[in-house]
Amino acid sequence: MDIDREEIAQKSLALHLDNHGKLAISSKVPVKTREDLSTAYTPGVAHVCRYIAEDERRAFSCTLKHNSIAIVTDGTAVLGLGNIGPYAAIPVMEGKAILFKEFAGIDAFPICIKGDHDDLISHIRSIAPVFGGINLEDIAAPHCFEIEEELQDLGIPVMHDDQHGAAIAVMAALLNSCRVTDKKYKELSVVVSGAGAAGYAVCRLLKCIGYEGEECHAVKELTVCDRTGIIYRGRPGLYHNIYKYLLGDETNQDLRKGTLADALIGADVFIGVSSGNLVTREMVRTMNKDPIVLALANPTPEIMPDEAKAGGAAIIGTGRSDYPNQVNNVLVFPGVFRGALDAGATRITEEMKVAAAYAIAEYINDPTPDRILPDPLDRGVAQAVATKVAEMARKCGCVRKI
Amino acid sequence: MDIDREEIAQKSLALHLDNHGKLAISSKVPVKTREDLSTAYTPGVAHVCRYIAEDERRAFSCTLKHNSIAIVTDGTAVLGLGNIGPYAAIPVMEGKAILFKEFAGIDAFPICIKGDHDDLISHIRSIAPVFGGINLEDIAAPHCFEIEEELQDLGIPVMHDDQHGAAIAVMAALLNSCRVTDKKYKELSVVVSGAGAAGYAVCRLLKCIGYEGEECHAVKELTVCDRTGIIYRGRPGLYHNIYKYLLGDETNQDLRKGTLADALIGADVFIGVSSGNLVTREMVRTMNKDPIVLALANPTPEIMPDEAKAGGAAIIGTGRSDYPNQVNNVLVFPGVFRGALDAGATRITEEMKVAAAYAIAEYINDPTPDRILPDPLDRGVAQAVATKVAEMARKCGCVRKI
Repeated sequence: MDIDREEIAQKSLALHLDNHGKLAISSKVPVKTREDLSTAYTPGVAHVCRYIAEDERRAFSCTLKHNSIAIVTDGTAVLGLGNIGPYAAIPVMEGKAILFKEFAGIDAFPICIKGDHDDLISHIRSIAPVFGGINLEDIAAPHCFEIEEELQDLGIPVMHDDQHGAAIAVMAALLNSCRVTDKKYKELSVVVSGAGAAGYAVCRLLKCIGYEGEECHAVKELTVCDRTGIIYRGRPGLYHNIYKYLLGDETNQDLRKGTLADALIGADVFIGVSSGNLVTREMVRTMNKDPIVLALANPTPEIMPDEAKAGGAAIIGTGRSDYPNQVNNVLVFPGVFRGALDAGATRITEEMKVAAAYAIAEYINDPTPDRILPDPLDRGVAQAVATKVAEMARKCGCVRKI
Repeated sequence: MDIDREEIAQKSLALHLDNHGKLAISSKVPVKTREDLSTAYTPGVAHVCRYIAEDERRAFSCTLKHNSIAIVTDGTAVLGLGNIGPYAAIPVMEGKAILFKEFAGIDAFPICIKGDHDDLISHIRSIAPVFGGINLEDIAAPHCFEIEEELQDLGIPVMHDDQHGAAIAVMAALLNSCRVTDKKYKELSVVVSGAGAAGYAVCRLLKCIGYEGEECHAVKELTVCDRTGIIYRGRPGLYHNIYKYLLGDETNQDLRKGTLADALIGADVFIGVSSGNLVTREMVRTMNKDPIVLALANPTPEIMPDEAKAGGAAIIGTGRSDYPNQVNNVLVFPGVFRGALDAGATRITEEMKVAAAYAIAEYINDPTPDRILPDPLDRGVAQAVATKVAEMARKCGCVRKI
């Protein structure tokens, strides 16, 4: 199952050069006759304009805003490539757009923003009118947290996929890992390696930070490690990054200190959203019985599946398509936004994220160690997720009034 | 040929509600198999990102930037409806997008901007990376002039269609009106009613303001009227609007004063880009022999065709589809941007606009009083315009080096 990465790289470049990108615009209405022109464009369109001018929310019913998502990046954290800028980010955003279309029928368009970091929020606000939702993408932490928070008042769902797509997929993987290993989700002891965009969101979701629903779905213990080791309340210099400071407050209640190896001793779950080759088979051996190892760094996981298996891991997931249990955001974002658009959601709440995680997990009737998540190419997942997310949006009451 | 406008209005609203707008996104590449996913998206796409990161101009060859236009508005001057805002403007921008696709195969996307007037330029700059060109639309004068000027350094063509689309179509109409009436273009005495976006651009194009080519294509005399009458150098208060001030400097060399009626005495051409019912048959009678009347206010022209005819007009054009000689921007913008994209033009020069006007005029072999312009639905015009515009772009040297 090994993939020739160089061959795929060359095929990919040829595909992009031959087609000049991947995205096209098409018309849903005919533009052939004079009458077509007069209803799709002038003079008839003036009536539609006046109709919206009376109440701008009507744009949701009679324009592309009904079904459109902006995929917004500044190119500061693209894949594992770092800050490569808004131009080099375009192929990823285009790719995401065609996945939105393919899996959820959503019309998504890439918005790759060039400009000062500080102006990003105002630029995104400025282009919101034509969109029904905003998928933030590949924006570096910690700025991505602030941007997402600031935009929650836009009246349309705004979600940073690198954070919540990853967190929801991880939660789904854990739910089914528990089914397979007979562990209880609420009794899990979890170690997260990485306190960037994905790490922060995984911690929030697994510890129910910001969750306002009736029943909390928090794991029992959660410890986060960054490059300098375990994050704990009062760690020197932690206040330089308000988000790590918050993690220090909300996780690791026992105030454990030390390295990632120290953290893993006795843990049920390892979640890697950091970088390759940080975990050894010996470290896995120190974990609790039937350890669950989700090593999601790409392309090189924190520990290779064979190595994790040698350490006694009961469940092994990666971000790669050439191993079982691919933890892939494509299971998440099409359905979450489809559900949000269908319900007319004004934002994506923690409850909706939990609903999405359960929908993905429950999509599999009989999970096995090699199948804790659906295949990323399975066309049914997005609709299952959308249904549950839309239900929860209506239940939360965070939907438009019109 | 009269149109039931109310019926069209209702049909248009139904069309927009039934389809939830007019625009859709589609993929140019398959996304069905695991290999599709790995070349169109991760991991293969990372190689394309790196390829662009080495030289951002490569985005023109391997992303949608190759063929994409942003249709940008702030909704401050939409059709004849005034400042209805970015939401109510969406249906017009969507309409324009599907015309771009239908007539020129261009992938255009509406960007409707909400925000302070003063930030508009920076917002537009910020979203430029993903686009191969920018069509400014329905932005109020005089701010539209400043915005367009400021954006000329973006490295991609930026054109305000309300200005130059109108000006180019008018020039084409005049070129063929001259062929029909045996007048000489360079000896025309022209009166323009309206000093807004279209009026200013018509004056610039007809007087060769900003033209740097070898041969100038200026009419002999040009006089502009606004609501308070003829614009002349030194008119009290004129300096409040720098663009009218410039018009005072560049037109009306005889320093005529008075009303639109005064201006028309002895003129060869009336061009109305103002508002309805400003001109009477008596005023047309005071014009030079075989007067050319282009009354383009919509939906009510400055003078109705019957009335102009009764005044002795030799050629009558309007902005309406229910009379002969419709002066419609759709003859212009698809071909101009197609040509600019094909040539890799970095801007749209005055010479390229003149080339477009000639291409439209010459598209008709034997112009007659009732046919000085091609039918707006004629699919051949855009390509004819594109060819000439691309030729001129290369001749000017204002094309990308890569």
